[in-house]
Amino acid sequence: MTYCVATLLDTGMVFLSDSRTNAGVDQINTFRKMHVFEHPGDRVLVLQTAGNLAVSQAVVHTLQEDAAHVDRRSLYSVETMFDAAELVGDALRAVYRRDAEAFKDHGIEFNATFLLGGQISGEEPRLFNVYSAGNFIEASIDTPYFQIGESKYGKPIIDRVITRSSSIAEATKCALISMDSTIRSNLSVGLPLDLLCLKRDALRVLAHRSIAADDDYFRMIRGGWGESLRHAFHALPNPML
Amino acid sequence: MTYCVATLLDTGMVFLSDSRTNAGVDQINTFRKMHVFEHPGDRVLVLQTAGNLAVSQAVVHTLQEDAAHVDRRSLYSVETMFDAAELVGDALRAVYRRDAEAFKDHGIEFNATFLLGGQISGEEPRLFNVYSAGNFIEASIDTPYFQIGESKYGKPIIDRVITRSSSIAEATKCALISMDSTIRSNLSVGLPLDLLCLKRDALRVLAHRSIAADDDYFRMIRGGWGESLRHAFHALPNPML
Repeated sequence: MTYCVATLLDTGMVFLSDSRTNAGVDQINTFRKMHVFEHPGDRVLVLQTAGNLAVSQAVVHTLQEDAAHVDRRSLYSVETMFDAAELVGDALRAVYRRDAEAFKDHGIEFNATFLLGGQISGEEPRLFNVYSAGNFIEASIDTPYFQIGESKYGKPIIDRVITRSSSIAEATKCALISMDSTIRSNLSVGLPLDLLCLKRDALRVLAHRSIAADDDYFRMIRGGWGESLRHAFHALPNPML
Repeated sequence: MTYCVATLLDTGMVFLSDSRTNAGVDQINTFRKMHVFEHPGDRVLVLQTAGNLAVSQAVVHTLQEDAAHVDRRSLYSVETMFDAAELVGDALRAVYRRDAEAFKDHGIEFNATFLLGGQISGEEPRLFNVYSAGNFIEASIDTPYFQIGESKYGKPIIDRVITRSSSIAEATKCALISMDSTIRSNLSVGLPLDLLCLKRDALRVLAHRSIAADDDYFRMIRGGWGESLRHAFHALPNPML
């Protein structure tokens, strides 16, 4: 499994992915699930993947191949984030046409989802969630974040503290807490993490960091948040039984 | 969906269930999912249900029918909690034999899980998780709690604060926080709640309460926990980006 979260703020965007993939608990590997398409000053797009690794790698490969050819329609040439989301959906549908029958023969579910966020010059920053069928939805004022993969463990904290007006630093902190809660409760999500932040209208990556077990800030989050939770828990009055 | 949690402590047990059932979001109803079998001084057993409501009601009906006849082997006559868990599994398998084919014809998944906890005189308090196939596992020192239904949202807080040595009051508070996190993030889990506490060796119900939206303590938890989380969140230092 996997856990990816992306947040769309008034001031920018924050993306966080884990890097664990597994086919059963006895086959666990590390693969990056965050891919960046950047032309500084013109656009910066971030793609996060969850689901079947062969499918998501095939989709990313297609998108990267197209991006490497200036004469092709690609994530570097489309004029809107909506068109970019359509490209991701199209690439996914092409993989489906090639693989779906073989998947069916082997009883494997065709399952891959993507978060695509970023900004293209002339537009606002935008965030999309692309489903296995290649269709997609866009984040709104009311729903400033999307998650893919093992999303449930880390959802309550985001629901409670993040709004569109949260700062990039706050959204980063919240994403890391959300990830930590997920890692603690689910074996299939694990370090290292990929963290990427964008500042609105900068049209380039603000920060892109790989976070391993020895990362000082993440260690502080892991210890500090657990401690804070226990403190908050004990500070609330007990029920009368 | 549903969310039920049961905790086995050194000093007793705590059970909490929601009461929402749904068949799609447009068909939401309230049904109790907690059933008590009590002979004060001899035994007290608590059964919580999740999954297909028709299946779980049929199982509960069978167990109650047997319990109403003194000549039958029932939750009132078995000598151990292990035997009681076996009875639940047997009742579930009988429903399966009757219904599974019709379910298959209609493309419905046969899905029902149970938490069975309590104490029978002569034994320690014990807690079991009975799966759809009628097999079951028992809670241990290392895993003092079980959840069924929509379990993921409310798992991180339990993982962080509850051990076997937690008090009944603490485990009750934690179960309510866990339930609140689930209700906030998932439409298919809802009020009223059924809360039940047992004290070790008392062999009778210590407290059994229905918690609706106007319950003072639960309202304090809902407001207070959210406030505590936000406070803890903002108290942790922001990352340097």
